[in-house]
Amino acid sequence: MEREIFEVIEKEKCSILKIKLKEPIEPSILKRVNPPVINYKKGLIISGRAPIWLYGFLIHYYHPTPFIGIYDPRLGVVIIQSHVSSVKVGEVMDVKIDEEG
Amino acid sequence: MEREIFEVIEKEKCSILKIKLKEPIEPSILKRVNPPVINYKKGLIISGRAPIWLYGFLIHYYHPTPFIGIYDPRLGVVIIQSHVSSVKVGEVMDVKIDEEG
Repeated sequence: MEREIFEVIEKEKCSILKIKLKEPIEPSILKRVNPPVINYKKGLIISGRAPIWLYGFLIHYYHPTPFIGIYDPRLGVVIIQSHVSSVKVGEVMDVKIDEEG
Repeated sequence: MEREIFEVIEKEKCSILKIKLKEPIEPSILKRVNPPVINYKKGLIISGRAPIWLYGFLIHYYHPTPFIGIYDPRLGVVIIQSHVSSVKVGEVMDVKIDEEG
């Protein structure tokens, strides 16, 4: 069931994980949530309206990915961690994501 | 300078990292921010109003701590990662934090 709150879109150089909450969630969801399988050879972008603690859980969960960016609708994708030299923490990637779609 | 946006309060079983932003920040701050030293023998709680990407950066940065909880004023401290058996992901710790102080 929890899988339905996530959608993964595979792009050439990264995966986009969209969080699609239709109703408020409780922290206990973290005990059973099963984040989708992604390609660990690519970076990950996380987008969607959700509590910071859900983002935090996912950032920890996907820690092994080459890089992680957080989509901020005002700014673009902010890189928060990177294990590859081509992507730097603090960079903003110009990616437009339809958060409703 | 960036140190001033953080305050660390040491509790018996955890450290509390308060984020105290007095003005909006830009992602480029992540290129030079120097998060405070904490005691890696204790868990970490992060609190304060801040962009998700700053939280994400800190969650990655403090990854080696025994556990990390995110303070949600409505709920308490939501545990998002744990390397110790006594603290479980998805638990809510009843901690009251004055986010203004």
